[in-house]
Amino acid sequence: MEKTLVKSLYRETEKFVNKDIKISGWVRTIRNSKSFAFIELNDGSFFKNVQIVLDDKLENFKEIIKLSISSSISVEGTLVLTPESKQPFEVKANGVFLEGSSSSDYPLQKKRHTLEYLRTIAHLRSRSNTFSAVFRVRSIAAYAIHKFFQERDFVYVNTPIITGSDCEGAGEMFRLTTLDLNNIPKKEDKSVDFSKDFFGKETNLTVSGQLSAETMALAFRNVYTFGPTFRAEDSNTARHAAEFWMIEPEMAFAELKDYMDTAEDLVKYVINYVLEKAPEEMAFFNSFIDKSLFDRLNNVANSEFGRITYTEAVDILQKSNASFQYPVEWGIDLQTEHERYLTEKVFKKPIFVTDYPKAIKAFYMRENEDGKTVAAADLLVPGVGEIVGGSQREERLNILEKRIEELGLNKTDYWWYLELRKYGETKHSGFGLGFERILMYITGMSNIRDVIPFPRTPGSAEF
Amino acid sequence: MEKTLVKSLYRETEKFVNKDIKISGWVRTIRNSKSFAFIELNDGSFFKNVQIVLDDKLENFKEIIKLSISSSISVEGTLVLTPESKQPFEVKANGVFLEGSSSSDYPLQKKRHTLEYLRTIAHLRSRSNTFSAVFRVRSIAAYAIHKFFQERDFVYVNTPIITGSDCEGAGEMFRLTTLDLNNIPKKEDKSVDFSKDFFGKETNLTVSGQLSAETMALAFRNVYTFGPTFRAEDSNTARHAAEFWMIEPEMAFAELKDYMDTAEDLVKYVINYVLEKAPEEMAFFNSFIDKSLFDRLNNVANSEFGRITYTEAVDILQKSNASFQYPVEWGIDLQTEHERYLTEKVFKKPIFVTDYPKAIKAFYMRENEDGKTVAAADLLVPGVGEIVGGSQREERLNILEKRIEELGLNKTDYWWYLELRKYGETKHSGFGLGFERILMYITGMSNIRDVIPFPRTPGSAEF
Repeated sequence: MEKTLVKSLYRETEKFVNKDIKISGWVRTIRNSKSFAFIELNDGSFFKNVQIVLDDKLENFKEIIKLSISSSISVEGTLVLTPESKQPFEVKANGVFLEGSSSSDYPLQKKRHTLEYLRTIAHLRSRSNTFSAVFRVRSIAAYAIHKFFQERDFVYVNTPIITGSDCEGAGEMFRLTTLDLNNIPKKEDKSVDFSKDFFGKETNLTVSGQLSAETMALAFRNVYTFGPTFRAEDSNTARHAAEFWMIEPEMAFAELKDYMDTAEDLVKYVINYVLEKAPEEMAFFNSFIDKSLFDRLNNVANSEFGRITYTEAVDILQKSNASFQYPVEWGIDLQTEHERYLTEKVFKKPIFVTDYPKAIKAFYMRENEDGKTVAAADLLVPGVGEIVGGSQREERLNILEKRIEELGLNKTDYWWYLELRKYGETKHSGFGLGFERILMYITGMSNIRDVIPFPRTPGSAEF
Repeated sequence: MEKTLVKSLYRETEKFVNKDIKISGWVRTIRNSKSFAFIELNDGSFFKNVQIVLDDKLENFKEIIKLSISSSISVEGTLVLTPESKQPFEVKANGVFLEGSSSSDYPLQKKRHTLEYLRTIAHLRSRSNTFSAVFRVRSIAAYAIHKFFQERDFVYVNTPIITGSDCEGAGEMFRLTTLDLNNIPKKEDKSVDFSKDFFGKETNLTVSGQLSAETMALAFRNVYTFGPTFRAEDSNTARHAAEFWMIEPEMAFAELKDYMDTAEDLVKYVINYVLEKAPEEMAFFNSFIDKSLFDRLNNVANSEFGRITYTEAVDILQKSNASFQYPVEWGIDLQTEHERYLTEKVFKKPIFVTDYPKAIKAFYMRENEDGKTVAAADLLVPGVGEIVGGSQREERLNILEKRIEELGLNKTDYWWYLELRKYGETKHSGFGLGFERILMYITGMSNIRDVIPFPRTPGSAEF
């Protein structure tokens, strides 16, 4: 008999009522009385378990009821509706077969474990309800992002992970090497001889694919990256990881408004897609992780996002009676307290803050007419603060070169980036969305370590 | 007026006939007579250009016809059908507006360039026909892979890029460090003090996500990875890159046959999806890159893949009259010449070769009853040789431990991998598909450097 997935039993129950079926999965719990036993079985295909009913006429009844949690079994039986029970149906077993046994010291017994403890058994934690929900939602959200862009004819580009330059400017980098660290080749002046390294020069792990993505946008018009990025920053917070995934769309013939329209559509699309495709997981988060989750997500999905300039934002903050740890004046970088005040207290919905002072933004952002601000925008959402950052890119060669010089950067490092402006300079805009940031927002999980299967943080690269 | 994408003009032409439209894009060529000019415009959304017709009544006619290749312009005009021409329609311009100029030394003038030369301008090569086709197909193929697995409820998992162990065993690794190479901290015994490094220990870039993916398969049943992997191997061939993308599905309650069925379905699905979604690009490859491409791909898409054992394969090779550079006997690793002979001369279609000698395969492959072979299978295709490798995984704790010891590996390095067998050992199988390998196969491109936007190979990490 062909095996059926538990997901099918739940989603197309009517097809299976009173029919013989075969399933396989892992034992989550066993309860037994003298002549009956109930197994909660999870087969991995679905968040919910299916209840298996055994009676002692099964020849291996005594053996089965002694199985340890997480043993894997296959079951042949009949699906029967159970309208009086909390679960909609159960499977009356005609045969239960041991596939693989588990040891009785299985660490995920049926009791509450702290998230901290579960991180120490990251190889097993996906078998718990919380992480089964988190990582299935991660998969569905990733697909939603691809689907959104592919439906809009954006070209998916894989920008390089290994970079030969440290000119991406977005953060501290990890160096990559095949040199023997116990015996580093040196040049005559005693400095490291990188010509002996694998790539013949210094290389690092990327902190952003943006500059490479721009080269592709100027060929394909609309492109997006979705890949891992790295920061060697020694910040041990709940929101920072050394390895995380980013989505970086880049659009030619697009101004700041086009980026904001696209980012707003994207965020709403992903939220709606996950709510539709993972209703059981989302209900779990709303019940057990963050009781305001549905309210918050529905608010985002149904609001028209606000748009104010940085100068207006500073004005609002200064005129407010709120007391901030960091005082507000034009020119400062907005802190999370300011961002949350604006989006939570003032607007009560997501807002884009646009046109930041150029001194606090990156060299590649397009200078506005006023000479003081740049065409940048950050998306702030209630409960978190910034989740998207983006800008129109400076396409004017002379202004970009001037900016690079002003900041003391080395123009030759950017030769190919500058050539994009020399050969058909074109208005273009783009943004970056941290995948884990939006996952935390969608699931209510408050630590980035709990939305990455095997997180990498300072001092920790386990598994 | 809203801008229209050139893709829409081609795909939904009837909507636009004799209508006013606005488009923008990059100039590919300009031809002009006294009073007329023709611009081939590419807007990035579509492989083909659209022909713009200008006449000298346009006030900026003289300025426009002098534009350099790759200047960006926007055009307002009327779409008219041209049934007598080779292109189905053209746009009669009412207005042409310069968006951004290009320099006259633009390196991609309209003539044939070698692929080698184009690699030196990787930031511009996507604007050529060949690379426009390659990288759009790359995007479409990537999406096909996600779509295939998501439709089958496989969970997409992001296994870590940074690994704290070198026990993946699939190849040479890149070391990662934040230590100052000019001043490496040493322990008392003069060895490197990795406790001072970012993660407090030695770390490397992953060579395979398989072992991590197995942890997820034993929770979610069916999972797949799709991410970058790295090999620090100094092999300067047309088929090896230091950074490439891999797809590694892993399935619980699945035997070798299930892996082969899934891999066969996947390969056919991706080929059919690309043929359907990128007909212009594929016709280009078939005309200009590999004239046997369609024959080859149709053969794969329509064949039932053959399945023979390694022992049968050796027998066939030994009985053949072919002369091989590497002599054939039971126990050897099959070379590309053997693989291609089997799939091209004998079977004339893709074949799986199964049940290899355990001595030439990895420690985690499941030992067969005969004690000599393992439940592994490689997929060989005409024209290339191996494109998929996979196996049933050894789920029996005692046999796996014995195998690790036999090979002189360190059991404690594999503590979490072994625990997967201790807590609910479950039959499972998986495979690896090199994304660039299948792209080369689908496009006919013969060098891996030409299917990666910015390739990384020994001595080369440009851009």
